Amino acid sequence: MKKYSFKNDYSEGAHPSILQRLVETNTIQSIGYGEDEFCNEARELILKYLKKDSAIHFVSGGTQANLIVISSILKPHESVIASESGHIAVHETGAIEATGHKVNTIVTNNGKITPEQIAVVLNMHTDEHMVKPKLVYISNSTEVGSVYTKIELQHLYKFCQENNLYLFVDGARLASALTSSKCDLTLEDMANYTDVFYIGGTKNGALLGEAIVINNLKLNEDFRYHIKQKGGMLAKGRLIGIQFSEMFRDNLFFEMGKHANQMAEKLAKGISAKGYDFLTEPSSNQIFPILPNIVIEKLQQDFDFFIWEKIDEENSAIRLVTSWVTLEEQVDNFIQAV
Amino acid sequence: MKKYSFKNDYSEGAHPSILQRLVETNTIQSIGYGEDEFCNEARELILKYLKKDSAIHFVSGGTQANLIVISSILKPHESVIASESGHIAVHETGAIEATGHKVNTIVTNNGKITPEQIAVVLNMHTDEHMVKPKLVYISNSTEVGSVYTKIELQHLYKFCQENNLYLFVDGARLASALTSSKCDLTLEDMANYTDVFYIGGTKNGALLGEAIVINNLKLNEDFRYHIKQKGGMLAKGRLIGIQFSEMFRDNLFFEMGKHANQMAEKLAKGISAKGYDFLTEPSSNQIFPILPNIVIEKLQQDFDFFIWEKIDEENSAIRLVTSWVTLEEQVDNFIQAV
Amino acid sequence: MKKYSFKNDYSEGAHPSILQRLVETNTIQSIGYGEDEFCNEARELILKYLKKDSAIHFVSGGTQANLIVISSILKPHESVIASESGHIAVHETGAIEATGHKVNTIVTNNGKITPEQIAVVLNMHTDEHMVKPKLVYISNSTEVGSVYTKIELQHLYKFCQENNLYLFVDGARLASALTSSKCDLTLEDMANYTDVFYIGGTKNGALLGEAIVINNLKLNEDFRYHIKQKGGMLAKGRLIGIQFSEMFRDNLFFEMGKHANQMAEKLAKGISAKGYDFLTEPSSNQIFPILPNIVIEKLQQDFDFFIWEKIDEENSAIRLVTSWVTLEEQVDNFIQAV
Amino acid sequence: MKKYSFKNDYSEGAHPSILQRLVETNTIQSIGYGEDEFCNEARELILKYLKKDSAIHFVSGGTQANLIVISSILKPHESVIASESGHIAVHETGAIEATGHKVNTIVTNNGKITPEQIAVVLNMHTDEHMVKPKLVYISNSTEVGSVYTKIELQHLYKFCQENNLYLFVDGARLASALTSSKCDLTLEDMANYTDVFYIGGTKNGALLGEAIVINNLKLNEDFRYHIKQKGGMLAKGRLIGIQFSEMFRDNLFFEMGKHANQMAEKLAKGISAKGYDFLTEPSSNQIFPILPNIVIEKLQQDFDFFIWEKIDEENSAIRLVTSWVTLEEQVDNFIQAV
Repeated sequence: MKKYSFKNDYSEGAHPSILQRLVETNTIQSIGYGEDEFCNEARELILKYLKKDSAIHFVSGGTQANLIVISSILKPHESVIASESGHIAVHETGAIEATGHKVNTIVTNNGKITPEQIAVVLNMHTDEHMVKPKLVYISNSTEVGSVYTKIELQHLYKFCQENNLYLFVDGARLASALTSSKCDLTLEDMANYTDVFYIGGTKNGALLGEAIVINNLKLNEDFRYHIKQKGGMLAKGRLIGIQFSEMFRDNLFFEMGKHANQMAEKLAKGISAKGYDFLTEPSSNQIFPILPNIVIEKLQQDFDFFIWEKIDEENSAIRLVTSWVTLEEQVDNFIQAV
Repeated sequence: MKKYSFKNDYSEGAHPSILQRLVETNTIQSIGYGEDEFCNEARELILKYLKKDSAIHFVSGGTQANLIVISSILKPHESVIASESGHIAVHETGAIEATGHKVNTIVTNNGKITPEQIAVVLNMHTDEHMVKPKLVYISNSTEVGSVYTKIELQHLYKFCQENNLYLFVDGARLASALTSSKCDLTLEDMANYTDVFYIGGTKNGALLGEAIVINNLKLNEDFRYHIKQKGGMLAKGRLIGIQFSEMFRDNLFFEMGKHANQMAEKLAKGISAKGYDFLTEPSSNQIFPILPNIVIEKLQQDFDFFIWEKIDEENSAIRLVTSWVTLEEQVDNFIQAV
Repeated sequence: MKKYSFKNDYSEGAHPSILQRLVETNTIQSIGYGEDEFCNEARELILKYLKKDSAIHFVSGGTQANLIVISSILKPHESVIASESGHIAVHETGAIEATGHKVNTIVTNNGKITPEQIAVVLNMHTDEHMVKPKLVYISNSTEVGSVYTKIELQHLYKFCQENNLYLFVDGARLASALTSSKCDLTLEDMANYTDVFYIGGTKNGALLGEAIVINNLKLNEDFRYHIKQKGGMLAKGRLIGIQFSEMFRDNLFFEMGKHANQMAEKLAKGISAKGYDFLTEPSSNQIFPILPNIVIEKLQQDFDFFIWEKIDEENSAIRLVTSWVTLEEQVDNFIQAV
Repeated sequence: MKKYSFKNDYSEGAHPSILQRLVETNTIQSIGYGEDEFCNEARELILKYLKKDSAIHFVSGGTQANLIVISSILKPHESVIASESGHIAVHETGAIEATGHKVNTIVTNNGKITPEQIAVVLNMHTDEHMVKPKLVYISNSTEVGSVYTKIELQHLYKFCQENNLYLFVDGARLASALTSSKCDLTLEDMANYTDVFYIGGTKNGALLGEAIVINNLKLNEDFRYHIKQKGGMLAKGRLIGIQFSEMFRDNLFFEMGKHANQMAEKLAKGISAKGYDFLTEPSSNQIFPILPNIVIEKLQQDFDFFIWEKIDEENSAIRLVTSWVTLEEQVDNFIQAV
């Protein structure tokens, strides 16, 4: 029998409503490259949440969203500041550097960065012999499951504006962040306190697709050229438009995020009840319990998950990821097996 | 009422069998990034046609396939040779140059290039003050609907090998080429007479997706790094794997290409019977009839298509594109309306 | 005995006054990277000719000047328009593409481009599937020895301004252009009718060095970052500053250009008097006489020069280049030998 | 009166013998781009020291040497490992990233990196979601004045070879390293235990120029294309050839390095005798004494130097750099003033 996987939030296909809608609209003819009626409907539905006149573009994946946004904003000598654990800093095969830009990294203990830490980077970059930091990149939720609060985002954005920096939020797991009990942010806040962010579909129940939201409209100039040049403009752009329409017509996007969080919370409580601690405080759909290696080995017989980090000779942190489709029964099984 | 569109071959969704398979497999868990069982099945099915131990990688679109393949092969000072009408030369927003490489172009009258024309380019590039051509890029079918024959491809490949050049074929519309009555090539030939080519799904009935086939295995080294870096590696790689499995399980890929060609041929014959000529000989699913402007205006009332080129004051060439799902009824309507 | 060379204008060292000044200033301490007193003096001396508040930067060579200027101006999706014979289009090993940008080329018969030709390029680039031309690059004198007149430059600049394009002039051989009898331009005109140009030192009696003049000051923002990043900022920037001071203190720059032109003119007249024609009208320090192959062979016994182009079975065009130090005696010898 | 500068080793012009040789050879005609007789003579003279059949190329500066070498070696997804204090990591305005490559940095306390530290980086980069480290970059002497010993270099090179990595040494200050009493390396060792290194002229008495030495000849393929493309190929390549000939004809290169070291050593001893400590052990021509701020302020009245780092509220480290032309009298003055 196949093991049940808590490895990630993209192990299955898409929410059934999305598939159904793809089937229903299949033979309708539309123009290509994201300018069709489905994409436009999706834009309108999202804009209702943003309450702002932002520009919205659809691309197929997170690395693509990151590299297109960042390379479209920066001039050759400008750099982007990110947490050392930031996706662009480690897990995108140098995608940002491949577009010509340095990533200035900040060491963090929970994946989140602060204005004070950014100030240290700025103070080190003072003349033309060094790159010029121009953009701050954060992820929400972060790569280690933490989330930013509204006041934290506001402070970051204010600091960026005062220091002539742009703020870009990687929202690959934004659904889980916005529906986390630890996070008081809304989509409207995201629009108000960032220059650009993206809404992740791939890791929240879509087949694929991320919606890039540009709030600072001067950054929207010629943006479609950048999407096309980097290979991010789908001929059948409707594929993403249809999915985002479905996700934002009746709150499906948030419901899927909520389910993921509930399953993670249940896992966390169950594991905690057995007396185990966590590497970082459980906040979203990624949790990092610290377990004895012998327990881990036993769990591996029935479940798939990543071993994240060696803690000491006898204990390790593992990563458990839940999703819109995680089965509660398997969550119970897991807790029982711990 | 909406006009019927002959604008392109990506106006609709996907073949119903593909959608059905997506629904059926939806809740099966799989690992990500193209290493899942669905992608592996698709690889095996395609390899049966190739009869060669090639490497196969899936990416989401044509520009992406082109830029990943070309930038993975060339060193910084090397260039790619293409027809002036080649997709990489005009319609990809400088995607190749954005990876650092010059495209050396050849003027053609039918979109196809010959060894003799390539030799002229080579003779002009003799020392380190100029780029070093290293790769030949052709499209089959080409951007103006023409197709390469087996003997033409063999000659090109032989010339490339003798001149230390690689040969890469853009197969965005390979289905239409391989099922054209003007083209005697098979997938097996494509594997034997190219270093790399790709099999287009987007323009032949898939939601999205192209299968890059690397026949010269030394070009496969670290290829997945390049896909990831350029944002072409889908987390839910299964989405493309499932589609290509479906297309290559029972000849669906070829049947869809055949339908597109039959509809184009019917259109061409009908238009020809009315006494009109063509810009290039109708060979695949793109045809370019030359019509009086007053006829064109009338046709535009019921049909969508591109006006390709002004011929003289009173006549223009238009582009008609058919696909796997083009309705024969609309083809008849169009002919009648000419 | 060594043959006398008419191959190029960089066969010898530097004007003796320049060397002498290097010796005189040798032990004076100065700060590095082009911010020293010598560079500042050179800037002031050049600005007197420009009569405009331009920014001036020194770099070591022409390819470097071209790639730094162009990559500093263009955004990733923007391109530069140039003559097919333009130095950036052929003889810089894809330096511009290596910074990510396409060069849109124009076929010319004399190396010069016109507003009408640029308009054709603009009309072909209409949407985000193609690059966006943003900069026009010309050389003065051109790579085939022709020169732009004041009215031609004014028209080009006006057209660029009306079409939201920048105008950049490669002045590797600007001295020869500005002192040509066919050219009525001054340095002041260059400052008034271009966004950026550079004043070539290497091909006009300096050991090395080009002075980039930025007249459109918004293009000067952070320019030193670009110089540094591309490896163009010399630690001993004084080396170029001292040379340009010397060239612009007492007209030396123009005198050297004038000598080169006089020698070329004498060559041209002498060759013409023998009944031979030219590929392009002799205008500056590069001339292209068409000679019988048997005459060329005889000339090669005593002189070095490039054979430029085969004209017919019995005749070829050769390139003769004169410089600030060309010996009149050798010019006479050459004419006699024709 | 101007203050005497210990700011850097490129404050003056060139060694008088070099200038004299430039004057003597000034009117000799030569071909361009580094293929002239002067460059060839310089190559031969250097090769006598290397005792190896290496390839030698001349470029104008250190950043240029670094970016050309590194970008010529790495494929798009490959990275270079360097000390956090490495010149390419901080002081080249992202030049390496601008060619598309990530710099993986290692935290060090003395600017030197070890095989063990490199192994840690390798162990963190395990799949295609991350860059692939392929090259190790070190500087000798380092940016904080330390030097590598022969045994250290041998271990590094052995480790690199065992791990499929290339080793490249930035020798901007190689003269000072090779003549340091703390360093037992020779040019011959540099050739034997590196894949590529460069010999710095700019910071050791030349007007400009670095000699890139490629010992691993497969890395030499098409290298001149890379030099040209990046703007590093001087038309009057002779300018650098003449200087390196002069430096390597009779040991001048080493004598200049030795003088710089002797002056630094005298400074260090004098400062030490006054009871002060150093940030890093004085080893080459850069030393970093830790002085009370009030002493520093007094010294600033007569001398120019950089304040390197705040140590505590009352003390700071300063950087003193000596060169081939540092005046012993001023060294004495400085010591006296401490």
